[in-house]
Amino acid sequence: MSQPAAFSTRPSDADLRGEAALRRRYRAPQSAHTGNWNEALEAILSHRSVRNYLARPLPEGTLELIVAAAQSAPTSSNLQAWSVIAVEDPARKARLAGLAAINRHIEQAPLLLVWLADLSRLRAIAEANGRAGEGLDYQESFLLAVIDAALAAQNAVVAIDALGLGSCYIGAMRNHPREVARELGLPPETVAVFGLTVGYPDLLAATDIKPRLPQAVVLHRERYQSAPHPDDLAAYNQTLRTFQQEQSIPVVDWTEMMSNRIGSTAALKGRDRLGDALKALGFKLK
Amino acid sequence: MSQPAAFSTRPSDADLRGEAALRRRYRAPQSAHTGNWNEALEAILSHRSVRNYLARPLPEGTLELIVAAAQSAPTSSNLQAWSVIAVEDPARKARLAGLAAINRHIEQAPLLLVWLADLSRLRAIAEANGRAGEGLDYQESFLLAVIDAALAAQNAVVAIDALGLGSCYIGAMRNHPREVARELGLPPETVAVFGLTVGYPDLLAATDIKPRLPQAVVLHRERYQSAPHPDDLAAYNQTLRTFQQEQSIPVVDWTEMMSNRIGSTAALKGRDRLGDALKALGFKLK
Repeated sequence: MSQPAAFSTRPSDADLRGEAALRRRYRAPQSAHTGNWNEALEAILSHRSVRNYLARPLPEGTLELIVAAAQSAPTSSNLQAWSVIAVEDPARKARLAGLAAINRHIEQAPLLLVWLADLSRLRAIAEANGRAGEGLDYQESFLLAVIDAALAAQNAVVAIDALGLGSCYIGAMRNHPREVARELGLPPETVAVFGLTVGYPDLLAATDIKPRLPQAVVLHRERYQSAPHPDDLAAYNQTLRTFQQEQSIPVVDWTEMMSNRIGSTAALKGRDRLGDALKALGFKLK
Repeated sequence: MSQPAAFSTRPSDADLRGEAALRRRYRAPQSAHTGNWNEALEAILSHRSVRNYLARPLPEGTLELIVAAAQSAPTSSNLQAWSVIAVEDPARKARLAGLAAINRHIEQAPLLLVWLADLSRLRAIAEANGRAGEGLDYQESFLLAVIDAALAAQNAVVAIDALGLGSCYIGAMRNHPREVARELGLPPETVAVFGLTVGYPDLLAATDIKPRLPQAVVLHRERYQSAPHPDDLAAYNQTLRTFQQEQSIPVVDWTEMMSNRIGSTAALKGRDRLGDALKALGFKLK
């Protein structure tokens, strides 16, 4: 039986779900093509960081699936200049949590993945082929390895969400890179770029989806537009204030929060020494 | 009606599809948890770079959906230290293709996204709040912006695949960072980290899924294991040789190809000057 004519201009289910996902992400008008909405897009758009985990262990083979997703990410020239260390030992997790000064959810999560920019493997391969591997001595190669690691990790994050699990990046793994390297037995020319906690989210402590800047602020057409429009920033400040109130977290303008986060060397919590640490870890950074 | 007993140990459809995806990715035995297989995992595991596009334009609103996916990626401290420039003008695409020395598929693709590590927006916000933003002067902040850009871009890549479109990263956007910055009118403290071509794949010229290193090479447990096992590298060399033969591309061991790629400064195609270029573009990198 065909649809009654009155329903013929009704938006499709796909459109409705897509539009809802966009509304949750921006809390502001944002149109986009939602006609091919599907589970993958739903998983991506509805991502949130999980900082409260159940004690429940991961099903066997979950780590291997996450790593397969990570390895499916693009990698520059197929160099695959990254590695990942799966940390499950509670004592080691606790020590790494201490180094990151983020104790609770690193200790709670059954799995901590530490993602490495890894030039050591390529150095060993070059040397086994009678080459010094001098291309590795440049800022470019370090950057390439960082990007490879980030692309791999983000594929892992989407896969984790698609499995109904949750995750949270730990940038604070860069607060003490040398100590982290010692704890994980890293060879020269490898560094922990960030950590990622993984586990079953405690839905009783779930946070809402964090709204992002209006697209007009991050998306440019053809050439870089000038500084962000004050109205866009004011609107985002207001959107985030509503979010902060709902989540019962301190209410402060995003522009002020960001200014504090980048306003002083002290706010980097030791990461101002990252350049020195990278050299100590063997990166040449020419 | 219940299933006949003889079928009770038959693997589920999910398992069969998941196992097939793993076989395509590794072409070697690799077990993983595949019981919750779904469209998102399928999109992630079956990714391939697309270098042949149809002339067909993208549906209206596709760019906005891709950017919404990108903005849904995690970002360190919600700093959102990235921007993206959508280039559709054929003349500008051709000029950028020339700078990357990758003409065909950048010119073919209806859309070229150029992903930026962007500290300029945060600098402007800090200054508007009466702060110098000295936290931006460090290697750490540059790195954070690169990571933010990479996480956002990879979310875009998964969304693009989920929409039945294709993409390919253009790392060669780092070959001439100053010229790219001029072409795109970038302010100080922004740099093109990589490009991404986007379009409908020409399925008549589709490549197969590229096999990756055995998991044992990239996945470490608790601590970094020693150098990769020669047997694993030999097996991967053989797997890639089969792939190369099938794709009618030059047949060469991966270990040799990588040794050449990183074996000399010349092989970096100008990216050895990236460190200097970053400073010229205004990054302090303390």
